[in-house]
Amino acid sequence: MAKTITAGIFSSFALNEQSPQPAYRQIYNELRRAMLSGRIPPGTRLPATRVLAGELTVSRNTIVSVFDLLAQEGYVVSRVGAGTYVADDLPEDHQLPEFDARPASSSTQLASADALSLRGRALARLSLTSGPANPAAFTPDIPAYDAFPIEIWSRIMANAWRNISLDLLGYADPAGQLPLRAAIARHLRAGRLVDCEPEQVIITSGSQQSFDLTARLLLDPGDPVWIEEPGYIGSRAAFTAAGARLIPVKVDSEGIDPEAGKLHEPAPRIVLVAPSRQYPLGMTLSMRRRDALIELSRSTGAWIVEDDYDSEFRYRGRPLPALQSMSSDARVIYLGTFSKSLLPAFRLGYLVVPPALAASFRTAKTVIDRHPPLLEQIALLEFMEKGYFASHIRRMRQLYEVRQRTLVGLLREHLRGFLEVQEADSGMHLVGMLRDGVNDVQFCAALAEAGVVARPLSPYYSMQPARHGLILGFAAVPPAGLHAGVQRLAAVAARFDRELPHSA
Amino acid sequence: MAKTITAGIFSSFALNEQSPQPAYRQIYNELRRAMLSGRIPPGTRLPATRVLAGELTVSRNTIVSVFDLLAQEGYVVSRVGAGTYVADDLPEDHQLPEFDARPASSSTQLASADALSLRGRALARLSLTSGPANPAAFTPDIPAYDAFPIEIWSRIMANAWRNISLDLLGYADPAGQLPLRAAIARHLRAGRLVDCEPEQVIITSGSQQSFDLTARLLLDPGDPVWIEEPGYIGSRAAFTAAGARLIPVKVDSEGIDPEAGKLHEPAPRIVLVAPSRQYPLGMTLSMRRRDALIELSRSTGAWIVEDDYDSEFRYRGRPLPALQSMSSDARVIYLGTFSKSLLPAFRLGYLVVPPALAASFRTAKTVIDRHPPLLEQIALLEFMEKGYFASHIRRMRQLYEVRQRTLVGLLREHLRGFLEVQEADSGMHLVGMLRDGVNDVQFCAALAEAGVVARPLSPYYSMQPARHGLILGFAAVPPAGLHAGVQRLAAVAARFDRELPHSA
Repeated sequence: MAKTITAGIFSSFALNEQSPQPAYRQIYNELRRAMLSGRIPPGTRLPATRVLAGELTVSRNTIVSVFDLLAQEGYVVSRVGAGTYVADDLPEDHQLPEFDARPASSSTQLASADALSLRGRALARLSLTSGPANPAAFTPDIPAYDAFPIEIWSRIMANAWRNISLDLLGYADPAGQLPLRAAIARHLRAGRLVDCEPEQVIITSGSQQSFDLTARLLLDPGDPVWIEEPGYIGSRAAFTAAGARLIPVKVDSEGIDPEAGKLHEPAPRIVLVAPSRQYPLGMTLSMRRRDALIELSRSTGAWIVEDDYDSEFRYRGRPLPALQSMSSDARVIYLGTFSKSLLPAFRLGYLVVPPALAASFRTAKTVIDRHPPLLEQIALLEFMEKGYFASHIRRMRQLYEVRQRTLVGLLREHLRGFLEVQEADSGMHLVGMLRDGVNDVQFCAALAEAGVVARPLSPYYSMQPARHGLILGFAAVPPAGLHAGVQRLAAVAARFDRELPHSA
Repeated sequence: MAKTITAGIFSSFALNEQSPQPAYRQIYNELRRAMLSGRIPPGTRLPATRVLAGELTVSRNTIVSVFDLLAQEGYVVSRVGAGTYVADDLPEDHQLPEFDARPASSSTQLASADALSLRGRALARLSLTSGPANPAAFTPDIPAYDAFPIEIWSRIMANAWRNISLDLLGYADPAGQLPLRAAIARHLRAGRLVDCEPEQVIITSGSQQSFDLTARLLLDPGDPVWIEEPGYIGSRAAFTAAGARLIPVKVDSEGIDPEAGKLHEPAPRIVLVAPSRQYPLGMTLSMRRRDALIELSRSTGAWIVEDDYDSEFRYRGRPLPALQSMSSDARVIYLGTFSKSLLPAFRLGYLVVPPALAASFRTAKTVIDRHPPLLEQIALLEFMEKGYFASHIRRMRQLYEVRQRTLVGLLREHLRGFLEVQEADSGMHLVGMLRDGVNDVQFCAALAEAGVVARPLSPYYSMQPARHGLILGFAAVPPAGLHAGVQRLAAVAARFDRELPHSA
């Protein structure tokens, strides 16, 4: 049973109002010092944020910020519904300096910890890795570069440059070129029943910027956000950077469960969800759960951020219409991207926002980076209008279906008993569950040494216990690569298998 | 003499801890209601944030946020060193609904005020206009589109697409392609004596994203930031969005005056400055002031954000070296852009950060938008390496010098006594001061009706009294356009002149 410090943790500490350090920095330093000195031992449960806020007469948000930073740095561990504990193993980077009141000597101040702000430290710890640029077996989340009609695109792009009119060379519409936004609106109305006018489409430089922009416009620091558990790391990072209080909500075979979410937080400000294809597990959100989310939004005013990242690639069953299309008075922001359907290098994605918010998103975009690159927009419009986009999607759907079937066949043949795989109904990757006792992070590290790319499943969980498995991309890998990759994967698996106990 | 409410403003109000509304929303609603009902009359001085924070036992930052929002919405006016007053004219959008605790009816909730967060409302009010895309006399801040070597660029870009290798089509380096960063580092070392290695160069999608990224990494909400008064609206907007407490510091003939700044705030977290060419007034920061800023950074740990936006175009005198080059242990972030030296449509700019922070900026970029567009980077590198960039800059410098001389000559001939102009030593615009009694915003509105673009000077001041003048761009306008523009300008001026009293 963990010891709880119920009060008095700051009995020998007082905020210095004259200090140039803000309150949270002083509190952070004091708590960290107490943990490192052993005054608050590992495993100790810390008092509730409300209690500490009262003790120090600061706002509860201040304490929440301090706890968040300590958690990100590994000093404390939060368990939903069970409080915050001092970590059993304090992080080894004890060298990480405190926030200095004033740099002691000018020669060290460039590297000193207060070089970054509290927000900046949190942001800089959220690195998103994107895997190697060169498509290897089994890099997930990238399309088939080898099958992209690069010559058609080059020709269109070169034409766009040759025929550019002078008035397009300056600063452009921050929400994107209206003709392209109209083409996207048509595409979404036809394919996803999304209810939108061109003015509601905001072009961004991809999903990551869409999440960042949405978080900054809809969220204040400390606001509660439901996230899928496990869920997409990119959106989690953007909302963490915006100061969200993340509430992980377990997914089951029907996707995210609103009833489970309500137990932790009945009125989230935002719900982050990928209904077409849950990331990473791949299930489709059931109609019943969709209705429940829409009802939650209607009754509490919660925003639903619908990430429809690769709805284009469905191999079995009919797609359900977008959540955005289900109700005209629920609060839904719809996200799409061209990184999967075309290429990541383009840096083009889009948001569909309610008419009442279109002007706000558009003006906020000017402050963030003025506007998306122009020539890519002009070329993409032509690519869509000439029918190349639709035919490319059709071709990729067929190609990816074959690639997945090949990969599943190979895995079932060579990794039976070690990796349990199921064909995905849609998308560009599948998830294999590892046999008990295999740590996915360690296994993926061993794979990397053998030249195989696979992403471990467990880091997509923000709470323990996580399931251990592999996220295997098949879209970018030609059949020969899939064969070679599975052989290497099987060799590493055999090595791990030998070291594990086997039940008779 | 304004009446001050010293205390008791919230005597009939208590925070509802059970409310789903955060504290700041409750306080905002209460204050706004009190002002609209006349309970706190126009002109009243509000109590200090510290006093109100104590009265409500919330953090001072909470009150500062509420005041900031009320100021942005026009309900209150802040005067540096003199407190915060209820505006004489309350804004007319009284319809703007309060933050609702819960939307009263689902049909209105999409448009209700709590659709956006507090931060989002502030962000959405910061729209940056960029002027018409089509270069007109006298749109400032845009280069000569008519003189851009569009054929060379098109050829390079088409080649880049034709020769692209597959491994470049995926997600790329978030800080930009290293060969381009190396080319920029060479360019800055040679031209601006900037002390940097390629790894310190972070490619962004332009200055606006550079400011946004810097603000989020170096600043926490409420941190004090010195800004030039008057100063650039783009950086002011990005730092406001990040929650900065802006401290306007008057510029004189030597630029920003650190001694004046210290009177208001001796230890700013950040100093925003354009030393090569102050925006919009155009003076160069003197060597003495540069030394003082470097000393301030060394002694207090303040960050200097050096915006070197159009240092390439200097017509007279020698440029002073960049602040960044003056000391290896001062904290300087250096910003540059290709929007002025090439074209805004490219969306490419860069930051030079200290080695110790390069990794943090790089990882933060992944969370914000992953990475800059790739093909533009490849094409720009070739444009630089083949010498096109250097020769384009040389040609533009000559062209702009001629255009400025033409414009100054015309203005002195046709607007003597009404508009006082001086040739700028560098840059792409000049500033003309209007004769007493002419309101620049009204005058520019009249010019717009006559088809002439000019930006009023007074909005670049964040405090009153502002000087009234015109910001006139000359770089983008061929001589015929300058002639026609000045004629129309003179006609509008004559109309205004007739309506003003004349001394003797």
